[in-house]
Amino acid sequence: MSDVSQLQKVLDRIDAEFDNSLERLFALLRIKSISADPAFAADCRAAADHLCKDIATLGFASEVRPTDGHPAILAKSNSGRAGKRPHVLFYGHYDVQPVDPLNLWHRPPFDPLVTNHADGRKIIVARGAEDDKGQLMTFVEACRAWKAVTGSLPLDVTIIIEGEEEVGSKNFVPFLEKNKQDLKADFALVCDTGMWDPNTPAITTSLRGLVYDEVKIKAANRDLHSGIFGGGAQNPIRVLTRILGSIFDEEGRITIPGFYDGVKDLPADILAQWQKLNLTPETFLKPIGLSIPAGEKDRLLIEQISSRPTCDVNGIVGGYTGEGSKTVIPAEASAKISFRLVEGQDPDRIRKAFRDYVTARLPGDCRVEFTEHSNAPAVALDWNMKPLAAAGRALTEEWGKEAVLMGSGASIPIVADFKRTLGLDTVLVGFGLDDDNIHSPNEKYDLRSFHKGIRSWARILASLAEQPR
Amino acid sequence: MSDVSQLQKVLDRIDAEFDNSLERLFALLRIKSISADPAFAADCRAAADHLCKDIATLGFASEVRPTDGHPAILAKSNSGRAGKRPHVLFYGHYDVQPVDPLNLWHRPPFDPLVTNHADGRKIIVARGAEDDKGQLMTFVEACRAWKAVTGSLPLDVTIIIEGEEEVGSKNFVPFLEKNKQDLKADFALVCDTGMWDPNTPAITTSLRGLVYDEVKIKAANRDLHSGIFGGGAQNPIRVLTRILGSIFDEEGRITIPGFYDGVKDLPADILAQWQKLNLTPETFLKPIGLSIPAGEKDRLLIEQISSRPTCDVNGIVGGYTGEGSKTVIPAEASAKISFRLVEGQDPDRIRKAFRDYVTARLPGDCRVEFTEHSNAPAVALDWNMKPLAAAGRALTEEWGKEAVLMGSGASIPIVADFKRTLGLDTVLVGFGLDDDNIHSPNEKYDLRSFHKGIRSWARILASLAEQPR
Repeated sequence: MSDVSQLQKVLDRIDAEFDNSLERLFALLRIKSISADPAFAADCRAAADHLCKDIATLGFASEVRPTDGHPAILAKSNSGRAGKRPHVLFYGHYDVQPVDPLNLWHRPPFDPLVTNHADGRKIIVARGAEDDKGQLMTFVEACRAWKAVTGSLPLDVTIIIEGEEEVGSKNFVPFLEKNKQDLKADFALVCDTGMWDPNTPAITTSLRGLVYDEVKIKAANRDLHSGIFGGGAQNPIRVLTRILGSIFDEEGRITIPGFYDGVKDLPADILAQWQKLNLTPETFLKPIGLSIPAGEKDRLLIEQISSRPTCDVNGIVGGYTGEGSKTVIPAEASAKISFRLVEGQDPDRIRKAFRDYVTARLPGDCRVEFTEHSNAPAVALDWNMKPLAAAGRALTEEWGKEAVLMGSGASIPIVADFKRTLGLDTVLVGFGLDDDNIHSPNEKYDLRSFHKGIRSWARILASLAEQPR
Repeated sequence: MSDVSQLQKVLDRIDAEFDNSLERLFALLRIKSISADPAFAADCRAAADHLCKDIATLGFASEVRPTDGHPAILAKSNSGRAGKRPHVLFYGHYDVQPVDPLNLWHRPPFDPLVTNHADGRKIIVARGAEDDKGQLMTFVEACRAWKAVTGSLPLDVTIIIEGEEEVGSKNFVPFLEKNKQDLKADFALVCDTGMWDPNTPAITTSLRGLVYDEVKIKAANRDLHSGIFGGGAQNPIRVLTRILGSIFDEEGRITIPGFYDGVKDLPADILAQWQKLNLTPETFLKPIGLSIPAGEKDRLLIEQISSRPTCDVNGIVGGYTGEGSKTVIPAEASAKISFRLVEGQDPDRIRKAFRDYVTARLPGDCRVEFTEHSNAPAVALDWNMKPLAAAGRALTEEWGKEAVLMGSGASIPIVADFKRTLGLDTVLVGFGLDDDNIHSPNEKYDLRSFHKGIRSWARILASLAEQPR
């Protein structure tokens, strides 16, 4: 049987088995593996156990391995031909984001369903439908089809799935260090990114970094009555809004001293390529109800969202936030703030610059506390990496459209961690769409993303196997 | 029996009966009459029923009367001598503030207890211990003692107690209009204010007004992932903090155009009198852990908190506020903002000026919604009003220190409502202290305030009865 007809049998098998693939994804989606909330620790463990067992059915040597947080799954394909053919390390995460505000969901977030999008697309709706359960299962199902048809995989595969990606993977890097021996591979594959648009596949070649900090400002030793103390006592919400409100200037630039140090303009050829992609507010912002790019006024929208560093306040709270009114001056107010970094920015320096900025603006009688949540540098991959070309060819075949090499505005810190701890380059392929509502109510994954995602990985595995090592 | 010896018997009775007075206050404090939260509507009703029955035991014709919100209690002393002697209308409110943040309370807020303050004072701890259950019960218990000793009251008394003071008394003014006939009196008494200090009684002769608005800023049609959309999509928290952060200038002045229109400086003689009171950061701010007056830099602290208008953000919320981190750009962010007004400021104009200020600073793609919570002008009473002198004499006798006529930074909108709807002037006497934690966790009322408060009202009733009408 030729390699081509073998691949065709695998693709046919994927089509024939698709309902079962979907049922296996649903079983995983029903597990409430919210990593941020300690109340769901047992669910995280259950998701790890479930995936471990499922992957074992493919003939992988599969184990749940402890970390200092939620456990990870480590599975090896055991071909008995180690070292004789390419070996890939596939990465995904089984943990999901919290579901609040729950009242905005149209159905229970952990009760997955295939339904119709307003525009007629079939979609899978559930927390994690895309990020990252749906995405990681495209790879698992592709392996399953190869094993079912040929009894083996085209190359050696190690699968590592973690449970703390959504909370900064704090315990995962030490885990990588400790399990280095078991994680040897030629390069890594990650399925946690998106397509260029619903018809155009993409390989992500740069990722923004992420510095996430929490700032709490405290003034009086207790909540105060604003009638008695108003005018005389400092109000931490006033201080917090004043400081955060000054972070952007009129041109949309971030005013923190040193923030743009080391940030380079795009090379002219890439800028020209991006200009041709013609990302307009009409296509990118209109679906979310907006029309005006909110970043630096002298930059293209595509630069604002992928090659320029940003700052967002992701959460703020202080004082009385219930129904009606309360005349209180609160004792404290806090905010969660994140910075997306690009190549050339050092996370530690950015965090320090932000903290210095806040501290310098703190009036007397106020104290500030900071809590670190994430700390990852940007990643720029080598656009000429060989596996990247192989993956690109496979994607182009599956989707009938040239795969785009693109920069992503998001952060996947594990890519830098793989390079640093394991010395591995990463190929980032994923099938998410901009309207998937990840991290939001009503998260979805297009049924087509899931189906053609599985087919894409089946092709990529074959294509990578053909690569000279 | 002379009037003097009669009063002494009443005061003796108060001392002898004090444990029972306290038990009756506790019974009221155990009722969770939080007016802001619809979940406690039945508790509000229960508080009204309880008070109505208790006041009926004094021989008052007492009824619970409906309003369009929580009900009110209307009780008349029925002396049969109507029109022949002074008639006072006493006002209090049975509703209390919400109790959050509950984790900062040292004990359950609706389980009252007498305990020792750190400095040795005996205090009653519970939500409403001062505001306003403790305060209103000082008057009820004074009436009870007069009835017990003499079989009657020194003057005619109508008691009106409402259940929506803490949520802006929206339904109370229409109630006053509707019940005008039953509320006729010569003047009003209100017990919802404080002492000058723990040893110095006070009558409040000016009150700041209150404009309370809620502002909600909306941008995208859903929460967004800050990696995918960060830099390109508008963030409502960024907009809200930018607008609120600009409300104060470096001198602590409010920058909203027209805000200070009509605000007058204090008359020189009053300013001189206030300077003599020597309110220092050491005495006023140190107990709450602060040291620097936060208001207009060119004003005395006592002006900042009582005769100058202010602005406070009482609450702010947007995005993810739970444990850990979430990389979200929220669809909306909101804040509760209040302004304390002084004589010369028009609440409607101030509200409009604030809303115009926000709207003018709103970037494209953002919408704003406002919700009105309170709207009350400042009140300045006539310092030469006769009942005020009579009350002052009684207070001076009870406390052994000259009663101070003072301005309050707080707002009691009912005082303006009484003037407008019933044509009544109000005498404001209360026994609260600055460290009572009203509207905060661990609200308390000094046992001495409760005890000497009852005695004070017993004296005031006698003193007012002696006034020529």
